[in-house]
Amino acid sequence: ETAAPAATRSVIDLAVIGGDGIGPEVTAEALKVLRVALHEAVKLETTEYDLGARHWHATGETLTDATLVRLRGHDAILLGAVGDPTVPSGVLERGLLLRLRFAFDHYVNLRPSKLLPGVTGPLRSEAPIDFVVVREGTEGPYTGNGGSLRTGTAHEVATEVSVNTAFGIERVVRDAFERAAARPRRKLTLVHKNNVLVHAGRLWKRIFDTVAAEYPQVTTDYLHVDAATIFLATAPERFDVIVTDNLFGDIITDLAAAVTGGIGLAASGNINPEGAFPSMFEPVHGSAPDIAGTGKADPTAAILSGALLLRHLASRGFDPALAHAAEAIEAAAEADLAERATLGPRSTAQIGDAIAAAV
Amino acid sequence: ETAAPAATRSVIDLAVIGGDGIGPEVTAEALKVLRVALHEAVKLETTEYDLGARHWHATGETLTDATLVRLRGHDAILLGAVGDPTVPSGVLERGLLLRLRFAFDHYVNLRPSKLLPGVTGPLRSEAPIDFVVVREGTEGPYTGNGGSLRTGTAHEVATEVSVNTAFGIERVVRDAFERAAARPRRKLTLVHKNNVLVHAGRLWKRIFDTVAAEYPQVTTDYLHVDAATIFLATAPERFDVIVTDNLFGDIITDLAAAVTGGIGLAASGNINPEGAFPSMFEPVHGSAPDIAGTGKADPTAAILSGALLLRHLASRGFDPALAHAAEAIEAAAEADLAERATLGPRSTAQIGDAIAAAV
Ligand SMILES: CC(C)[C@H](C(=O)O)[C@@H](O)C(=O)O
Ligand SMILES: CC(C)[C@H](C(=O)O)[C@@H](O)C(=O)O
Repeated sequence: ETAAPAATRSVIDLAVIGGDGIGPEVTAEALKVLRVALHEAVKLETTEYDLGARHWHATGETLTDATLVRLRGHDAILLGAVGDPTVPSGVLERGLLLRLRFAFDHYVNLRPSKLLPGVTGPLRSEAPIDFVVVREGTEGPYTGNGGSLRTGTAHEVATEVSVNTAFGIERVVRDAFERAAARPRRKLTLVHKNNVLVHAGRLWKRIFDTVAAEYPQVTTDYLHVDAATIFLATAPERFDVIVTDNLFGDIITDLAAAVTGGIGLAASGNINPEGAFPSMFEPVHGSAPDIAGTGKADPTAAILSGALLLRHLASRGFDPALAHAAEAIEAAAEADLAERATLGPRSTAQIGDAIAAAV
Repeated sequence: ETAAPAATRSVIDLAVIGGDGIGPEVTAEALKVLRVALHEAVKLETTEYDLGARHWHATGETLTDATLVRLRGHDAILLGAVGDPTVPSGVLERGLLLRLRFAFDHYVNLRPSKLLPGVTGPLRSEAPIDFVVVREGTEGPYTGNGGSLRTGTAHEVATEVSVNTAFGIERVVRDAFERAAARPRRKLTLVHKNNVLVHAGRLWKRIFDTVAAEYPQVTTDYLHVDAATIFLATAPERFDVIVTDNLFGDIITDLAAAVTGGIGLAASGNINPEGAFPSMFEPVHGSAPDIAGTGKADPTAAILSGALLLRHLASRGFDPALAHAAEAIEAAAEADLAERATLGPRSTAQIGDAIAAAV
């Protein structure tokens, strides 16, 4: 007699925030693909949340405490994109997107960058690009600390305070070392600006070096953020895993997305690795209201964010086979891109259909 | 009878900080070219200052008050590069380079980016690139404000405070509008991250919009810094003049240098436009100790920094013809690059000789 296999969870209770602009369109394709990828093994139950610019205009609310409590009950969140030029800058970013990341302690903001076959990036070089940025998600200049004095006058002083804790840095640095150790090249680069931001920089470096001692198999190096942008534009193949602070991560992941063919392809996960809170998966791109409804939006980033979601759940009590489903989605997305390169462009729904069919 | 022409100053009293690594080599070539470009009209007198890593190792000093007072007496400063892996990160940056920028109120950090003929950048696109970044140089996250609590423990908290004043922003924004108004395309882009850094972002935007009203002939737009990096990698031709804060400027100008062929070509001026203090001109690149003494360093960035120096002095009481000398240097540097593209690489001294001969 052998022991029965450990019971795995069989229903993914997913919150879906389609959001604004192209957000709902690309999310619909991601769900289409997820449903196919899960077959019969795991059931997907979705609850839609109406949040974003439209909701704010209608209600004046960004995200209420009650909604936050409901969202918290889900296994994960799939987000399309929020925002609109009609909403003052910062309202939805701070009130909704960052509120979710902070409230659900998404300290690992995971952003893979890969130059996929069939994709022509802006760089002349054809060197393979395949790295992942582990961006800290709950500290740094994103805390909202700071303020302004003599606001609106010629004597105004405005401050922004970057807050960095040993606790917050260590947990994300450990996560990055784990990811680097699990990859074939086993290389981790710390990106900061410790020659200027000496207080935060010293803390990041100290913790990075301390944790590094526990991972002798991982090769490490350090780059200032300005130098990192040079390498991203001239030799992105040098990177394997990057760990960096919230703001530097924001900047270099957009650049990384650009050099690997555009933010239409860049997926991301806002992860709470311990699973104390639902993690949230979203394409890196915005709501692109100018092309909403035209069928021009590329749902690949949203679909690949769905793959990241499955891989995360596979490590959180769901069937480990979800990781294979994630791989199947990624392979299908690559195949679709290769086909588009030869057969020509496809609409939002056509891309979703093609990937779903190939999965 | 016509009035005698206003007397112009005829001796440039230049402080030279060669610095470390390739710094002295590239500075020597810049001086070689400057001497030729000035002919008989204006005399160049130079005073060398021994500062940087070597000096710090020998004396323990980065920059004494006495040296600062002596430097202050010069018309301008030409700097090569300072730094060395043997000096702890931040010591020379904060103690020397940033100390000079702050002490001499270099609030306009001017960094032109141009894809020169004969130069093959990393981008596939061959679109012409020609823009200039006006980076604020005396505020933002570079002030050194912040600190750390429970330093060295598992409970450390480190902060960095970005300080932004209406006064400091307005003067650099005005400078950028003046530069944009004087260029054929008359376009100015504000780069910030006002959807997250809302306090500083709001102040930058308010002042930018207020000053914009005085320059109806200048077209303006706004980009978040992350989006700006995407455009720099995919469509840098969209930029004409960019104005931005100290840290964002640091990051995007390295990226801009990369897409226009590398920091071996990127010149910069740390300018106090009113001339209350000497302005300082330096290549964007570092001291590159690995190639020091090999003749491999490209002195073009240092030489073009010399051209920026002449253009600045032409507006500060020296013969306005210095602006023509600056143009002659730039044309000669372009010619040298075109020749190198066909005739093959040249050594540090050969490049200096070629440009000096062509001037
Ligand atoms: C919209 C904005 C708040 C967000 C960020 O700055 O993190 C976005 O740029 C991103 O990278 O997810
Ligand atoms: C060396 C460093 C302090 C400096 C900066 O961050 O400004 C450099 O990167 C630059 O851009 O001139």
